[in-house]
Amino acid sequence: MVVVGSVAYDGVETPHGKVDRMLGGSCTYIALAASFFTEPRIVAVVGEDFEEKDYDLLAARGIDLTGLERVPGKTFFWRGVYSHDMNDRETLTTDLNVFADFNPRLPASYKQSQYLLMGNIQPALQRSVRAQMDGALHLVGGDTMNYWIQDFRGELLKTIAEWDFLLINDGEARMLSGENNLRKAAAKIIGMGPSILVIKRGEHGAILWHGDRHFMVPGYLLDDVFDPTGAGDCFAGGFMGYLAGENIDLRRADVDANALRRAVIYGSVMGSFCCERFGVERFHTLTHSEIDGRFEEFKEFTAF
Amino acid sequence: MVVVGSVAYDGVETPHGKVDRMLGGSCTYIALAASFFTEPRIVAVVGEDFEEKDYDLLAARGIDLTGLERVPGKTFFWRGVYSHDMNDRETLTTDLNVFADFNPRLPASYKQSQYLLMGNIQPALQRSVRAQMDGALHLVGGDTMNYWIQDFRGELLKTIAEWDFLLINDGEARMLSGENNLRKAAAKIIGMGPSILVIKRGEHGAILWHGDRHFMVPGYLLDDVFDPTGAGDCFAGGFMGYLAGENIDLRRADVDANALRRAVIYGSVMGSFCCERFGVERFHTLTHSEIDGRFEEFKEFTAF
Repeated sequence: MVVVGSVAYDGVETPHGKVDRMLGGSCTYIALAASFFTEPRIVAVVGEDFEEKDYDLLAARGIDLTGLERVPGKTFFWRGVYSHDMNDRETLTTDLNVFADFNPRLPASYKQSQYLLMGNIQPALQRSVRAQMDGALHLVGGDTMNYWIQDFRGELLKTIAEWDFLLINDGEARMLSGENNLRKAAAKIIGMGPSILVIKRGEHGAILWHGDRHFMVPGYLLDDVFDPTGAGDCFAGGFMGYLAGENIDLRRADVDANALRRAVIYGSVMGSFCCERFGVERFHTLTHSEIDGRFEEFKEFTAF
Repeated sequence: MVVVGSVAYDGVETPHGKVDRMLGGSCTYIALAASFFTEPRIVAVVGEDFEEKDYDLLAARGIDLTGLERVPGKTFFWRGVYSHDMNDRETLTTDLNVFADFNPRLPASYKQSQYLLMGNIQPALQRSVRAQMDGALHLVGGDTMNYWIQDFRGELLKTIAEWDFLLINDGEARMLSGENNLRKAAAKIIGMGPSILVIKRGEHGAILWHGDRHFMVPGYLLDDVFDPTGAGDCFAGGFMGYLAGENIDLRRADVDANALRRAVIYGSVMGSFCCERFGVERFHTLTHSEIDGRFEEFKEFTAF
């Protein structure tokens, strides 16, 4: 599974505390979450300030760093502060630094991977990555955000037309489709190309559309949300990581349609763990049996 | 099953249209929703302007109107307007009229009912109704709102201490408990008396706490929300109506714990139908097979 996106340093303030600088970025969160299911291969760029201990964390989780380019300059830096209820956040700093000239190049060793997940980067770059892969994949898709939807709509539409799935949040789905109602929004977005759509709703869970069915899962009730940064990317990493780890090929006629539903649960599980500590801290200690335990909790609290 | 609350006329404006005056009130919505499962007996007050066709609608649904008092004056009137996304509403008019002096008296024929559901009225009145019932009931509970939580807290705490269940929305649960986190809020509220708590989350579904378990259900995705007025009350009516119709006695040791979960689904089903038309209009045509069909839809879109 190939993951393309940002590797960054973040400064985050939540009602539970403040961290001035810690490892972050969409590619980081996606790859860490996916690493519990498969061996992610990342494509990203960092600057000269990227720290040894952060390489080590990624490598220790079995993440292939062949495509992690290091160039002169500083690593992408983002800083934000969350509202009291953590449903809103304000960006205080966005220093793109070396990320401004990011032009993802896939190492030869990645090109036959069957799974490709694009974090939230410029749609034209996402398309260039897709084009670098050899032939048809089992599954390709990714994320985007309001900025690309508003100001790069044409590029974005060309990009997602080539995808099997799109993962976005509810506000972005409404913006992309021009529909306030989520059923109507989903129908329009599926008409744009991706046959699978996952709408993330933060603490309210997620909705999957697949074939002519949809699947809804509530958000896990945490005792404390320390830091929601990266939760959506961890969802994406758990979702795609599970499908890649099980080698699910959605193009096969005999595919288990419920595999996608289980993937949404694993995405929700990884997103929930992400929020339990600041930044990527929870992934230092997380175990497979904790993941399986939380999957079973989802079964228990949704059964009737 | 006895239902106490308001019978009113409402004026409602939503993005889908405007109705100047139509049948409404918590007791009305609860009883109509419950009437698909059991024979509700209502306790409420109306004025001389209460129309024959509105009596007829309630009677045609098999609702016992012995406790519907008619007194000189006008029926409670409420008027409000919903925001574009229907997540907010503004109250424009509240004319309590005859409801200002409402002092619910249970007809003798109601006093041996085993199920008692209190709509959102003054907590002291709710307690007086409880006291009028003969002995221990299978199930007693109800609803409240921010106004009573803020300004009648002492009264309210005495009232819910006698209840088996409390149904409130997420904002009210946070206000009542002083906890922003819903897990913590639920634990505090259960400590106040009711062993069963249902937190309604509007379009995001509901959470049930029962015993040491909790159950989460997403909100049904409607093609169009015409008018959300009364949806919470219809939830309550479906929830309690199902339990009464099945004669579930939660005090019995051999009770099926999942009956409460199914009751939450029926509540969600009735709330969803309520939103499909203005006011109570949907209940003119709703059938049992539509209700069963939507229950099965909930099974389908939550299974994994």
